[in-house]
Amino acid sequence: MRFGRIATPEGMTFAVIDDDGTTAKAIAGTPFTEPEYTGRQWPLESVRLLAPMLPSKVVAIGRNYADHVAEVFKQSAEHLPPTLFLKPPTAVIGPEAAIKIPEFATKVEFEGEMALIIGTPCKNVKAQDWKSVVRGVTIVNDVSSRDLQFADGQWARAKGIDTFCPLGPWIETDLERFDFTNTPIKAHLTRDGVTETKQDSNSNQMIMDLGEIIEFITASMTLLPGDVICTGSPAGTAAMFPGDRIEVEIPGIGRLGNPVEAA
Amino acid sequence: MRFGRIATPEGMTFAVIDDDGTTAKAIAGTPFTEPEYTGRQWPLESVRLLAPMLPSKVVAIGRNYADHVAEVFKQSAEHLPPTLFLKPPTAVIGPEAAIKIPEFATKVEFEGEMALIIGTPCKNVKAQDWKSVVRGVTIVNDVSSRDLQFADGQWARAKGIDTFCPLGPWIETDLERFDFTNTPIKAHLTRDGVTETKQDSNSNQMIMDLGEIIEFITASMTLLPGDVICTGSPAGTAAMFPGDRIEVEIPGIGRLGNPVEAA
Repeated sequence: MRFGRIATPEGMTFAVIDDDGTTAKAIAGTPFTEPEYTGRQWPLESVRLLAPMLPSKVVAIGRNYADHVAEVFKQSAEHLPPTLFLKPPTAVIGPEAAIKIPEFATKVEFEGEMALIIGTPCKNVKAQDWKSVVRGVTIVNDVSSRDLQFADGQWARAKGIDTFCPLGPWIETDLERFDFTNTPIKAHLTRDGVTETKQDSNSNQMIMDLGEIIEFITASMTLLPGDVICTGSPAGTAAMFPGDRIEVEIPGIGRLGNPVEAA
Repeated sequence: MRFGRIATPEGMTFAVIDDDGTTAKAIAGTPFTEPEYTGRQWPLESVRLLAPMLPSKVVAIGRNYADHVAEVFKQSAEHLPPTLFLKPPTAVIGPEAAIKIPEFATKVEFEGEMALIIGTPCKNVKAQDWKSVVRGVTIVNDVSSRDLQFADGQWARAKGIDTFCPLGPWIETDLERFDFTNTPIKAHLTRDGVTETKQDSNSNQMIMDLGEIIEFITASMTLLPGDVICTGSPAGTAAMFPGDRIEVEIPGIGRLGNPVEAA
């Protein structure tokens, strides 16, 4: 089932999006329980999709694709293992909202990733139990300003600028739809009317798999419902500039598209 | 005025703590507005002080005291300028709650710091206007596992473990009580009945002052009411072990004390 959060003329609401992506049916509650339909529904094209969740925290794993480690850090993953970082909730935006680049961020790149949405408070989760604490999967763009990332050493600023965490378009809760060991991840960059596929990888390139990520994080931190886990970016990240458009694609979820503007 | 958050037999509430620290007077709302007293009050010793705020984010500045940079990073602040990092809200605990050290964190140190509590949504704040967006000041202990900090490179895990962000005991809103260019910061470690003052420094050692910190953060990130800004730790940080007790002291606020336990 696909849960979205939408802005309608009547206000914001969570909604179930039908599988062909044409209709949003409002629900009374949240995506964390079985949907109770209010009876109101809209054609999806007549409402605005927001980020499907406003998380209490966004925990991300860096250096989790060997090919991306080689391209950005110029070292092998063996010498630079996966590492955790946090993105602030204030960076989260929804589909079609603009990624706004401030003047002082001079090398801003997209990073298309699969994201997990936590469904239940949890700590010390074993890898094999990861599905029991995850409500669903969605797409995240871990926008990163490489200049600040390397100048600061810590990544909080480079990856934490307002609008640098596009999320969506919705949460797919049917985990059985996916083979998580073999899920394509792509990112398409459109510039001056020309679209190029820049990232074209697969979750089979992950160093820590989804279960290992959940076990690693929850050994330290309690996760809460709605928390977002960014599972790492494959190779192919590239610079974005005002006027560009970036779409991250994961089959079984869909596409997360955002235009790029100057802040 | 001092705002605390307390657990009473009747439930949790925000409260105004009188200046001599003996009475907690419940308020109907939050610390963000002038207090509306409910009429209920308790001797402070009969209630439990909680973390005075549950923030949407904790933004911290690292390497902001030259003496601490030299002791931890073995380099001068000139070569390692201040940097931003985030601590997860799930790490926040209140006064007297136990700092719980997991087995895999083998070199856990305290870092006594002054913390600012944001009072209003803000972005692009100029340094000289910082007081207009700050509701008050409190004390934070930026607990850090040095082994993980340096092994991971990113500090999110080393500083983000559950219980690694003691906060309190309350928020002092009268900023005019302080000379922020000359405020002592101390941390006292008690082990086997013997108390030693390990940190004994002053805000006059800060590299970025409070206004510069707020300007630096809000150039990138929107801050929201209740967000916590950790302003950096001076020299004197040292290892803590189960059985220890750590108290961070800032005159004009008070003391934030926490026991240390094995997780």
